[in-house]
Formats: sequence, structure tokens, C-alpha cells
Amino acid sequence: MRTLIRGGTVLSASGAATADVLVEDERVAAVAAPGLFGEEAVDTVVDATGKYVLPGGIDAHTHMEMPFGGTFSADTFETGTRAAAWGGTTTIIDFAVQKKGTSLLSTLDTWHAKADGDCAVDYGFHMIISDVNDTTLKEMESCIGGGVTSFKMFMAYPGVFYSTDGEILRAMHKATETGSTIMMHAENGIAIDELVAKALADGRTDPVQHGLTRPPELEGEATSRAITLAQVTGAPLYIVHLSAAQALAAVAQARDGGQNVFAETCPQYLYLSIEDLAKPGFEGAKYVASPPLREQHHQADLWRGLRTNDLSVVSTDHCPFCFKDQKELGRGDFAKIPNGMPGVEHRMDLLHQGVVAGEISLARWVEISSTTPARMFGLYPRKGVLAPGSDADIVVYDPAGRQTISAQTHHMNVDYSAYEGFQLTGKVDTVLSRGRIVVAGGEYHGSAGHGRFLSRDLCQYLN
Amino acid sequence: MRTLIRGGTVLSASGAATADVLVEDERVAAVAAPGLFGEEAVDTVVDATGKYVLPGGIDAHTHMEMPFGGTFSADTFETGTRAAAWGGTTTIIDFAVQKKGTSLLSTLDTWHAKADGDCAVDYGFHMIISDVNDTTLKEMESCIGGGVTSFKMFMAYPGVFYSTDGEILRAMHKATETGSTIMMHAENGIAIDELVAKALADGRTDPVQHGLTRPPELEGEATSRAITLAQVTGAPLYIVHLSAAQALAAVAQARDGGQNVFAETCPQYLYLSIEDLAKPGFEGAKYVASPPLREQHHQADLWRGLRTNDLSVVSTDHCPFCFKDQKELGRGDFAKIPNGMPGVEHRMDLLHQGVVAGEISLARWVEISSTTPARMFGLYPRKGVLAPGSDADIVVYDPAGRQTISAQTHHMNVDYSAYEGFQLTGKVDTVLSRGRIVVAGGEYHGSAGHGRFLSRDLCQYLN
Amino acid sequence: MRTLIRGGTVLSASGAATADVLVEDERVAAVAAPGLFGEEAVDTVVDATGKYVLPGGIDAHTHMEMPFGGTFSADTFETGTRAAAWGGTTTIIDFAVQKKGTSLLSTLDTWHAKADGDCAVDYGFHMIISDVNDTTLKEMESCIGGGVTSFKMFMAYPGVFYSTDGEILRAMHKATETGSTIMMHAENGIAIDELVAKALADGRTDPVQHGLTRPPELEGEATSRAITLAQVTGAPLYIVHLSAAQALAAVAQARDGGQNVFAETCPQYLYLSIEDLAKPGFEGAKYVASPPLREQHHQADLWRGLRTNDLSVVSTDHCPFCFKDQKELGRGDFAKIPNGMPGVEHRMDLLHQGVVAGEISLARWVEISSTTPARMFGLYPRKGVLAPGSDADIVVYDPAGRQTISAQTHHMNVDYSAYEGFQLTGKVDTVLSRGRIVVAGGEYHGSAGHGRFLSRDLCQYLN
Amino acid sequence: MRTLIRGGTVLSASGAATADVLVEDERVAAVAAPGLFGEEAVDTVVDATGKYVLPGGIDAHTHMEMPFGGTFSADTFETGTRAAAWGGTTTIIDFAVQKKGTSLLSTLDTWHAKADGDCAVDYGFHMIISDVNDTTLKEMESCIGGGVTSFKMFMAYPGVFYSTDGEILRAMHKATETGSTIMMHAENGIAIDELVAKALADGRTDPVQHGLTRPPELEGEATSRAITLAQVTGAPLYIVHLSAAQALAAVAQARDGGQNVFAETCPQYLYLSIEDLAKPGFEGAKYVASPPLREQHHQADLWRGLRTNDLSVVSTDHCPFCFKDQKELGRGDFAKIPNGMPGVEHRMDLLHQGVVAGEISLARWVEISSTTPARMFGLYPRKGVLAPGSDADIVVYDPAGRQTISAQTHHMNVDYSAYEGFQLTGKVDTVLSRGRIVVAGGEYHGSAGHGRFLSRDLCQYLN
Repeated sequence: MRTLIRGGTVLSASGAATADVLVEDERVAAVAAPGLFGEEAVDTVVDATGKYVLPGGIDAHTHMEMPFGGTFSADTFETGTRAAAWGGTTTIIDFAVQKKGTSLLSTLDTWHAKADGDCAVDYGFHMIISDVNDTTLKEMESCIGGGVTSFKMFMAYPGVFYSTDGEILRAMHKATETGSTIMMHAENGIAIDELVAKALADGRTDPVQHGLTRPPELEGEATSRAITLAQVTGAPLYIVHLSAAQALAAVAQARDGGQNVFAETCPQYLYLSIEDLAKPGFEGAKYVASPPLREQHHQADLWRGLRTNDLSVVSTDHCPFCFKDQKELGRGDFAKIPNGMPGVEHRMDLLHQGVVAGEISLARWVEISSTTPARMFGLYPRKGVLAPGSDADIVVYDPAGRQTISAQTHHMNVDYSAYEGFQLTGKVDTVLSRGRIVVAGGEYHGSAGHGRFLSRDLCQYLN
Repeated sequence: MRTLIRGGTVLSASGAATADVLVEDERVAAVAAPGLFGEEAVDTVVDATGKYVLPGGIDAHTHMEMPFGGTFSADTFETGTRAAAWGGTTTIIDFAVQKKGTSLLSTLDTWHAKADGDCAVDYGFHMIISDVNDTTLKEMESCIGGGVTSFKMFMAYPGVFYSTDGEILRAMHKATETGSTIMMHAENGIAIDELVAKALADGRTDPVQHGLTRPPELEGEATSRAITLAQVTGAPLYIVHLSAAQALAAVAQARDGGQNVFAETCPQYLYLSIEDLAKPGFEGAKYVASPPLREQHHQADLWRGLRTNDLSVVSTDHCPFCFKDQKELGRGDFAKIPNGMPGVEHRMDLLHQGVVAGEISLARWVEISSTTPARMFGLYPRKGVLAPGSDADIVVYDPAGRQTISAQTHHMNVDYSAYEGFQLTGKVDTVLSRGRIVVAGGEYHGSAGHGRFLSRDLCQYLN
Repeated sequence: MRTLIRGGTVLSASGAATADVLVEDERVAAVAAPGLFGEEAVDTVVDATGKYVLPGGIDAHTHMEMPFGGTFSADTFETGTRAAAWGGTTTIIDFAVQKKGTSLLSTLDTWHAKADGDCAVDYGFHMIISDVNDTTLKEMESCIGGGVTSFKMFMAYPGVFYSTDGEILRAMHKATETGSTIMMHAENGIAIDELVAKALADGRTDPVQHGLTRPPELEGEATSRAITLAQVTGAPLYIVHLSAAQALAAVAQARDGGQNVFAETCPQYLYLSIEDLAKPGFEGAKYVASPPLREQHHQADLWRGLRTNDLSVVSTDHCPFCFKDQKELGRGDFAKIPNGMPGVEHRMDLLHQGVVAGEISLARWVEISSTTPARMFGLYPRKGVLAPGSDADIVVYDPAGRQTISAQTHHMNVDYSAYEGFQLTGKVDTVLSRGRIVVAGGEYHGSAGHGRFLSRDLCQYLN
Repeated sequence: MRTLIRGGTVLSASGAATADVLVEDERVAAVAAPGLFGEEAVDTVVDATGKYVLPGGIDAHTHMEMPFGGTFSADTFETGTRAAAWGGTTTIIDFAVQKKGTSLLSTLDTWHAKADGDCAVDYGFHMIISDVNDTTLKEMESCIGGGVTSFKMFMAYPGVFYSTDGEILRAMHKATETGSTIMMHAENGIAIDELVAKALADGRTDPVQHGLTRPPELEGEATSRAITLAQVTGAPLYIVHLSAAQALAAVAQARDGGQNVFAETCPQYLYLSIEDLAKPGFEGAKYVASPPLREQHHQADLWRGLRTNDLSVVSTDHCPFCFKDQKELGRGDFAKIPNGMPGVEHRMDLLHQGVVAGEISLARWVEISSTTPARMFGLYPRKGVLAPGSDADIVVYDPAGRQTISAQTHHMNVDYSAYEGFQLTGKVDTVLSRGRIVVAGGEYHGSAGHGRFLSRDLCQYLN
């Protein structure tokens, strides 16, 4: 079974080339000069003339059907990965969430059961550690053996996911020993809880208080602290959803010093701000996520961080909760609003918008959305590049396409869009997942269960 | 005419893939799954089993037959590019050197005449501006039109190449206007001349004084100053041959801030030190170059800079002078020793040694020696990558090969080696230049005149 | 009752003047040109010819008879303040220590009871907060009303003195509201406990492990964190016993930014190192204090910090435990060694040694040992300066005197000296406390109960 | 001859005390408890009740009757020092200006001749070096012997005062050898001249162009460069009239590192901005000085620098040119406007305004305006403090006085005020110069020739 994508501009993390891409079954067979392969020996031809051909997007941070505060994020693995495919993302890395008192391995089993047979595109797992103990630490090794090579911890959410600095240190020692990566939600949750209590005691209950009680200094602080703990133990560290200039400065300093510290940001921090959280009425609830949306001036810093590679990856932290019934749980008490925003479908588009605006180059677009996540999380060269032997996860992207984001038309299972009405230049044309066309001609051709679990190697950036 | 390089591990700036490379005439036709192309339709097969296949090296800083202090650097374009080919470097960018009172265009003509018909591999030119005036500034545009898109200036060598800050500002304004790059030799030559005069007045005349009178602080200072001038004017800036931790710190700070500032270092600063300059007798003269070799602790900083991408490129500043008759001009007066060291032949090997030692990854090896120079100096994707349509400049490299560097065996036209006796792991096996095998089986198959002038575009990294 | 100190060189925080000092009863009546006052109307004349006359030392950090781990620090207020007087320190600020479950005011009562009637020199109190709750916070106001205007908290010692970041935030909010100062023991005790547990589990039990399990990075981290919490709340912050270059860097950065952040170091960090902790056998136990003694290279950083005023004060953290019976509690388990070292007697001498060595100027000696502590802790101009109306706490110091420190001869109630055998230039000659000669001619003329409690104002350095 | 200043609040660099000051002839005889001295043995009593009593101001940077661009600054030593006295400044340090081709000693003679017999208050000289050569360097020693211990050089004004980095290095070597201080006008004049030429060529000729062609980055750059040259040579460095945040950052970094680097700013940079330079018509010419007035946001940085002691001194750079006939020389060509502004009279008041506004403390007011300049320039304890033996240069200052600055009422010999209409709280009441009342009751009692030349020692802050 052969597919030829012809006539396009093939993009990589270093630049562009005019070339055809030959796919054989599930893999890339060749990248070749235009016309080198005739159409006679090919089953399907995709005409990419005037379009970009790039490795499928990798969203390294999603939360499908995640339990949170008594409810679940609204996308299942089925609906979420389908929406991802629509948006040119052909790999997600979701999080298995250890509950206190349970084991990592049973957690992993649970998540395998959730995803297995449901996904439209390939997927992997990170493991969230909520309960550090001898068993957990030992199980980290088994997780790595099972292709789960990165472990997320929380300096936020005391009483739920929060780990103490001592627990973090223990897990980091194990990460150093095994070469695996610690991912960190870096906000000082203990201090934040105090600010939240103070706000509620003062009668400040609106959604904007979510932002005001989580000041950027406390993200900067936690980021610095995580970096120090990583320095003391030697563990590789990956800061998730970095949102604040203060945190970026800490990451930049560590990276200048050559430490194995990496960071991602998310589209919402590049395009939205605390102004959205402050929208009248309860509207701001749509924008409640942690870390919170920041003052607008942070956006320029984050774009700069993407250019300087102090921010290496853009993920979505996709964690949708419907406005009705879910976000509404927090009316009258912002602290009860489920934390999270939808986004998996629009990451590639929103980043392409950065190309249009001159914030990043085409090569950098591919790098931060696909190549680097693949290398960072041990998927390269299977994913993240169009090279012989790589999985044929391919996006044909129309740089001149136009679209308007709307909850009316998006494919995520959530009743609002954080980007409602955004007008974008650029649009996904055709998407292949492991050689199969899943989106084309504005129609969905994928199927639940096509997507397979990805056993991942270690990070490929370690010094 | 087709050549198939089969069975190797194809390296790029992001990683490795097992693949065959098909070359048609002068260009890469395809990178394909092993065996996709049979040998029947192929003229030549290169067996790369067990070997790396990588884009040919690009040495962005050489000085062939350069006039300096009444003599000339000892390699001609013929001998120098031949040595480059032996070492897996298939592109050099040399410098046309404006003499005060002459025009840039006549200078360029002179250098074209020197190189034309003589080179074993492709070559480009940067232009050294020694005489800033209205004519020169106007001619910068013509240079760019002629494929010379980068202009080197000197904060060192008063009375020879030195430009004042005002002259630099003028050239930078023109660079901003045209999108071209200013390259800078960043040492405070005015201050250094005073230290040199003081040393000579004190009777300190040995080669080590060359190092002691050019302290790293004065490289750091000049680097900072160049960065400020670039900031004031908006010009892209590329610091050549960065040798000192102080200069690296200045570059890192500017890059953190998102300024278009880039830097290269050279193998001699990674492997040699002021201890070499201080060798007994006049032996130290072999190591006289500017900036000078530094104290050993700078080496670790430079390797770290290569990992953090604060140093983006490694070039050689190849500028050989024979010990006999040339270096000896400075006996009794270190200031008269011709400045420069040979190196074009061993850059790829010495950097591979960094891979062996764990300093850098394989992908980074390719990036700093080929892909980044190509993107930096407007040669990508013609050079710097193995992609369809790219020039078939290809190195087959044996990672298990062993060699010992020696002036007895090297191919550069100079009577000593700065790395005499260095034992290396890794060795060039086969080299193609624009599809032609120029080195194979330990023999040279190239010819003078095969190499062609490369008209270059602007830097591809600009924000 | 008049005393005239004549013929000396009167030192202040800005320099020296040749002058006589007239004391009337408990206070300075005048500083005058030599001979302006005749001896006729004077009761006592102290001849200070060839000697320095300076404001009595203020040791802002002592722990007399402090409960710790089931034992008490070995000096009582009586023995400790007497030793202080011998060493030219005429004011101490000790710490009242809140036990969890008790109130601040009852704690203060307890400490008043301990000190009242026992002290040889004047004394004040800081309050240690171990139990943050609504009552405690309210009581902070009463403490301030009672002249206790600074509150110490601990990021170290979980389960004992440790406060969470949330508790620190609460106390800081109150400090901001009242203008009082938060003093911080800045070490990440949670992380340290994990390192200690790991060391003990690995069978590493020697005193040097005390140092190795408290790396300087964790002091730097906690210092940065305290600074951020102070920034978020607006509270004045004073870092106690800063020992590590990393912490100094954090303080320097905050101070450059104009934040109300201050720090002290101690003589032990200026003169001793982890080499002492690593002395053979159990000898190292003598040097167990927290933060631990550091590698020697930190000493130069601390001296520099004193010169740059990033370190504003030198206190002793005097907290003596006898080697026999007390330090010995930790044989076989370094974590059980009582934390603390003696020092109150030798601070002035050891700092004068810094003058002799050229590390600091005479003016700076007076400033860091007397004037700044007075201004920092709301005692100026009553203390810290020789001006009309100031308490006549005066030291006549012989810069040419010689002494050798030894437990045989010192006056502290502890069976060893951390500086045994140190040979010093400079020696206290005569000491007045509130106009009364307490040390003169090598004899002690003071008495328990002469010293009075000092009700302190707020810090005088706040922006 | 005895004067008693009674009932005031005596200020020093560390705080305040209620005390009387007894003056005997030219010197302070005692600072004493109120009433200690009766009025019977006193010739004159000054009632300072409700007022501050502080050491007379020291303006370390003035230019009386200085030749500049074919004209002279408008104040003579007579008019300028009288205006100084009116404003509570009892010492000025002016600049002798070497002309190229002349010797330092003849220059000094010339300046002695200008000032001798004319000054209302005491004065010293710095020496401006415009011509570095063997003779000049040798003469530096004689200058120091003659009480001129600081040497100003220019990185600005090419062709006039400008020294090359090599010349600066030579002078710094001599400064290191002698312990004297290099003062630096740190702007990159070479680069600025290019920007000026470009502006004029573009037809931009208004006064605001003076500011736009001297961007703050070029002050930051020159400041960094001066610091590096000082580091290489070991010379003490004092940056004059620092105006830009970028320069402050460079100074702060050097000071954090313990280098002997100091800086002053001036009132015009604290209160005025480039908005003033941009006033309509030719009005902006009144505000032309170098460095130029900056954008307003720099002001907050400078006040912060004064608090953090990264800025140690406030001087005026008093260099008045009348608007009529002098400033007007630059109509149509901003480069021809004489550089300089009047200010010597209002420094004390404008800084007191900083006290009123809460920017600095009372103690800091005294420190930056008197005590530190005295210590910095070798005048302490003769000047800068009220201590026995000090010169009785004393200001009685009414903190509740009100005044409005105006050219109508000021005493400087210039036809405009840069602060016209500024309403100030605080006013000089009485001024003594070496024991003599020179201003009292709103009248001037001084006389030309009372002021004497001050032979200065070396800087007292050197590490």
C-alpha cells in the first residue's frame, strides 16, 4: 500500500525543501526529488501543490477524561484524539494520574484501559506521581520499562497532587538513576492556598481572583526551586505550561548554565490574558486554568522564549470542562471552578499564526510543535520528522486557508471555545496517521482504535 | 549519473535514521528506506554499512593565501580546499580582504581571481571592510547582489583592519537596511596595543606575551560593545572566533534577550590553552593567533556554550603560517609573529572527538559543523542537509576509525600541526562534493577547479 | 557622675576623629576636641591614648539558655552577657522561643523572667514564631508594643520550628501591616531531612555529614524563596546567619532591585570551613551548627559581601553546647548533635582581625558590629553611635594588643572553643555599659542585673 | 571666638540626635547634650530649634568659568561659590581643564589663579586630562602631591577632551600605582558623533536631537567599558553624572563583584526628562547637557540606585550657560548648543525634596550630599561630618520652609532656571563656612576670598 504526497514544500525543523514524500504502509519510505517516483506504482496520490508537508503535530500535554474535583474533563480519548487529528496533531501524550494510596502500575493499567481501542491517533503516557513511597519509586522503573519515561509532579494543589520538596527529591534521585525526566507543575501551592483563603475570607470570589491569588512571582519561585532540586540531584527537569516571565528567567539562567532543564508553554499563554479572566459576570470561568492567564506583557516574553529556545515546546494542557454544569460548579467561589481549558484542536493553527505574525519561522513552527516534543520524550525518529522509517504521521497544511475558531464548528467535546471568533490564516488540509488518511477534503476518515500506544525512550537532549 | 550510498546511518541536525541516499548528478535525489532503490539502476554504490552519512562540513571562517604583515598564509585555495576535502569539509567561506584605499568590488574581483579554478570544493566569500566610506557602504549592496552577504569588521588591529565605533555604526546601519550580517573580531585593539607596548618596553618579548597582553576581559568588553552597537542600529551580529568566558557571557545575555546575535568558536579554543603559548623557547609561536589561547578553564565554558547554543557554529579561522621563515619573523618580538593557526583539515574530526567524550550529541555535531553554518550564511538547503535537491556534499564517516594527527601526514601546506600527536577516534571514509567522490579509500580523487563559487542568501535566523 | 575618656581615636561608621568623650551618668554628654573638658569636674578619667574609642558592640543574634533537642544551650543570660561584655559587646538581642501550642506573650514573659536581673549588659528580644495562627498573629502587635519588633521564622527544622510557606505568608502580611521585620532561617529543611534520612540509611553518620546533607544550594533556594514571599507581601526581610555564596547572590539581586532585604553573616562562616566539620573522630561535632560550615571558597564571597553591604551585619548566632554530655548526644548519629557554636565573646576581635587583614576598613568594622545592628533593629541612636544622649556603651580597644583564643581563658560557659589557638591582633581594653565601667585592667567590674531590657523601635532602613 | 548652635536636630549619615554644636574659631569643638554648654562663654548663639543641623554640602562636580566651545560657563568662582553658599553647599570640587599641548601643572596654576581670592566657600580641584603622554603621566604624581587626587577623562567629545582606550589605560596604570581615582565621563563619543552627523545630514537640528543622538545604550556601553579597563588595570573608578538605567546596571554589577567602582548622579536626571529637551521652539536648549536628559522611567531607577548605594553621590555638574547669546549659539544646529546646566544652588534643596517624597531617608540625604563626597574625595573628617576637629561647615536647615525656584530669585549668574517654578518644602536657614556665618536671616554675609583651597587625600573607600 503506497501513498505519494507530491508537489508540496516539505518542512523540517531546519528548513524547507521541495520534495515528494512516499509512504509505504505505515511508514515513510522516501523523501525524494519531485517526480522521482511516478504515480504508476502508487495506490493513492495526495496533491500538495502550494501546501506545506510536515511531520504530524505532537501534543505532549493533554488530559482526556481526567478526574478533577469530582468531575471529569469533557473529552474522552475518543473525542479528544479525533479533535487532535482534525487539528493536525497525530500524537498526544496524556497523563496517567496516580491517586494517593494506589500504585503506579495499577494506575497505568487503568489508563491503558481508558485509551485502548478508543484513540484516533497514536498516544503515549506520562505518569503523574501523587504518592511518593518506596513502592512508587520502585515502580518508576517498571513504568520506564513500559514506555512511560516521564513523571509529573506538582508543587501546587496541596492535598491532591502536591508533593513536598522531600518527596520531589526522592523521585528526582530515582529519575537520575534511571535517566528519566521529572515534569513539574511549578507553582507554590502552599503559598497560593493562603492567598486563596485570604481572598475568600475577604469576600473576593470572582473568577479573576483565580489569577490574582496565583501571582507570577509564585510561579517563578517554584520554578527556581524545582531547578535547584534538580541541580542537587542531577535529575532532568521539564517545566510544564510555563506562563510567567519570572519563570522564564529562571529557566533561561539554568539553561545558560548547561543544566538539563527544559520548558513548554501553551497557546493560551501566548494569546490570552488575565483580561479574559476578568470578563464580566461568570464568563471568566472559561479561562480558569493553572497557572492562570497572565498580564498581557508576559506574551511577548513567551514568544521571545520560543525564539531563544528557552521554551522548547508548545503543548496545550488540553483539559476541557464544559461551561454549563462543570465550570459553573465555581459560581460564588472561584476556587471551585474546575481548572482547565480546551485546546488540542487548535495548537498547530495558533502556532502557525505566530509564523504569519513574524514571531517564529516556519522551521521553528515544526520544531516546537513536533520535532522537539519527539526528541524530548523519546519518540524520535519514529515521530517528529519525515524520514525513511518514520511513522507516516503527516500533515498537509494550506498556508493560505482561512478559518474562524468557534465552538459551533470545533470537534472537541466542550460547549465553548477560549478562542471564539479568532480569525486565522492557515488550515489543515490533509492528515495521515501511520500512513492512513484520517482527515481530507474537510471530512473525517479516521476511526477509534486506529491510534496505538507508544512506548517511549528517554529524553534525547540530556548532557 | 547515479550514486547510491547504502546501509549507513544518516545523520541530521535533529538525529539519525537508517537510510540510503540516492545521488543523481550533483544533487541528492532521495533519502529512502534501505533497499528501496535497487543497485541495478545505479552507476556507483558506496557501502556505508556501520558508518555515518552526513552533510558535508562547512567551515565558515578560513583565510587562504591571505596577506598579513608582509607575508601570506601558507595555504593557497588549492592546497587549502584539498585539505578541507580530506577532512570532510566540502564548503569553505573565505574572506576577501579590503585594503584601505581600495574598493570592495575590486577586492572581490581579486579574490574571485585567486580562487577561481583552484578549489577542490565549493566556496563562498565574506567581505572584510577595512575602509568605511560612502563608496564602501554603497558597494555593500553590490556585494550582497553578488552573493557576499556578510561583512567582517575588526575592533582589533589598529592601523590595519581596525574600524572605529563610528565606522562600525555606519556599516551596521547599512547592514540593517540590507538585512546583511556584520561579523566582528571583538577584541579591544586600542587597549591591547597599549598593553603590548608596555610589555615590549618592559622587555617581555616571548610568545606567551601575546596571550598576556590580550586578556579575556578585553574580548568580553569588545563583544559587549559590538552587541550594544548592534542593538542601537538593529544590525544582525555574528561574533567570530569567540574564545573567552567573558565574551560568551555577553553573547548569552544578548541571546536571552532575543537579539540577533550569534557566535562561533574554533577547535583551538576547545582543545588548546595558554600553556601551549608558554611552551619553552620559541615553540609557543606555533600557537599565536588572535584572540589568543586562553587559560584551560575557558574550555569547559565553550563546550557548554556549544551545548546551550550560545555558540552556534564551530569554524577554524584556518590561517596557517609556517614555523620556519614565517612564525620566526617574531623571534625577539612577539608582536611580529604572524597571527594564525592551521586547522581546516581537522575540524570535523576534533568535533567528533567531542561526541566521543560526551561533550555534544551526534545531532549537535552535524548541526554546529554543517547545518547551522548553512542556515547562518544563506546556503541552506543547498548545503547543510541531505534532502532532495540539496547539493550532494556528503561525508561517510567511520566512527570507529583511528588516527593520529601529525604534520607528517596532514594535507595542509604548513610545516607543523598545532595538534601534533593527538590521537582521535573517528575518521573520514568517503567524501562527495556535488555528487563527485573526492576522497575514498584513503586516496584523493578531487581536482582543482571542481569547487564553485557559492552565491549566498541572507542569514536565515533573523527575528 | 562624670567619666571622661580622653586622648583616643573615636571611631564611627564613617570614620575616625581625635576626640574626648564625656559621659554623664548613663549617657554620652559630649564628643569634644581633646582637652576641651578639663579633668577637674570629672569623677573618672579613662586614658585612651593610642586606642580606639567606639560604640559598644551589638550582637543581634544570640541564644542563651535555649532549649534544643532536650538540652539547653550552655550559657545562661548571666554567663553569656558577661562573656559578651568581656568581648566588647554591650548589647545582645536574644530570641524568645515560642513552643507550639503556647502563646507569644506567655513566651515573652518566660524569656523576660529568664533574663531579668541576670544580665551584665543591655538586651533585647526577637520573637521566634513556631506556631502561626490567628492568636499568634494578633499577638505580634502586642510584641511590637512591648519592644519586640522582629520575628524569626524557620524554613528549616520541620516538626520543630518549621513554618510552611503559607504560614510565612500569613506572618509576613502581618509584618507588612505593622512595619515589623521577618527574620528568616533560610534552609530548605524539608529537602534536607530527605538528604539526612538518605545519609543515615546509607550508614553515613559522622559529623561531616551534617554539612554534606545541607548543601549550599538549599540555602540559596530557601533564601530566594523567602525573598519572593517577602516581595509578594511587601514585608521587610532579614536573612540570619547567611553562609553560602548562593544565598548571597540572591540577597544581592534583591537589594539591587531595591527590595527591603537584609542579611547577616557570622564569624564562623568567615573563618571556619567544612574542613573543621571533617576533623577526625568526633571532633567535628564542635563545629555543628546550621547552616553548616561551608567549603572555604565561600569565605572570600562573604568578606566581599560585607564590603559591598550585601551583608550588613555580623552576629554570632551564639548557641553553645558543651562537647562533653551535649555534643556527645550525637555520637553515631550526626543528626542528634545539638546545633550551635559559642562565639559571643570574640565577635569584635574576629572582625577587627578583618581590619588587620585588610578585608574591611575601621569604619566598616564599627558599622557592621554596632551602628547597623542598632539601626536595623530600632535601637539607634540610643545604641550604635557615640553621640550626645546615646547610652554610654563604649569600648576602648587596643589595636596593638595581642591575644590567643582558648577555652582555658575565655569567659563563656562552654568547654571548648571553635577558635582554639587563634592568635589575634587587637584586644578589648575597657568597656562601659550605660556609663558604668564593666571591664577594665583585665578585670571584670560588672554585675548581673545591670543590664536592662531594651524596648526596640522598627527597622530604620525601610524604603 | 565661639559659636553655639543650640536646640537643633543634628544629622549625620547614620541618623539624628538632639544636640548642641559648639564651634571654636574655624572648627567644631564639640557636639554635646542640649544645654551642656551655657551661653555665657559663647560669642554667638544660633537658635536651631525645630531645625536640622547638618554638615555643609559638598558638590563634587562643578565647572566655574569653564571654557567650552569658544565661550565660558557663566558663573565665575565668585558668583558660583556664593550661589553654592546660599544653597547650603560649603565645598565645591571644580575641574582644572588641561588643554591639549599644555601641562597638568600649568593647568593647575591657571585654575588656582582663577579661584584664588574669589571663593565664598572652600574648594578643591579635580584634574581633567585631555592629553595623555609621558609628561602628563609623570605630572599626575605632582598633582596628587598638590592635593589634586582625582583625574577625569572623557570617552565623549572626540577632538576635544576625548581619550582613547589606550590613553585611558595608561592613565589608569598610573592611578593604580598612586592610589588615585579616575573619574569618567562615560558616553561613547565616537559612536555618538556618527549619530549626530547622521541627524544633521537628515536635517534633524532641534535641541531634542541632542538627546536622541546620545541613546542610553551608549552610556551603558561606555560605562561597562570603563569598568573593564579599570578591572584590567586595578584602578579606582568613579563614573560622573550617571543618567541611564543601563549604566546603573553596569555599575551595580561591578559593585556586587567588589570592584572599586563608584558613581554619582545629578539632580537634573532625578527631576527632568527628555520631555524638557523636546519643549517647543528652542526652549529645549536650556536642558542641553551631556549625558542628555533621559526618558522619565530612568528617574525611578536612579532614586533606587541612591537607596541601594549603587549611586553614592549626588553632584550637580553645574555648568551654566545663559540662554541668550550662549545657548543660542546652537539655533539651527543642536550640536553647537553649549553643553551644561546650572544647579549648584539647589542641590541640597532638591535632594531634601527626595526626603519629603519618601525616596530617601534623612540620613541618606546627608550621606549622599556631604559625608560620602568627603570620604570619596579625601576630605573626611575635615569635611562631611560634624565632629570635633572638623571644619565648622554647617547648615541649619528649616524642614518646614517653603520656596519656589526661579531665575528671578536665584543667585547663580545665569538667565534661566532649569527648575523654574518648582515648589519646594525645606529651605536653608543659616550657613557657616569654617566657623563664619555666611548666610543667615535671608542675607548674605560671606565674602570672596574666604574660601580656601583644599588639598585632598586619596579616596577612603578603596578595597
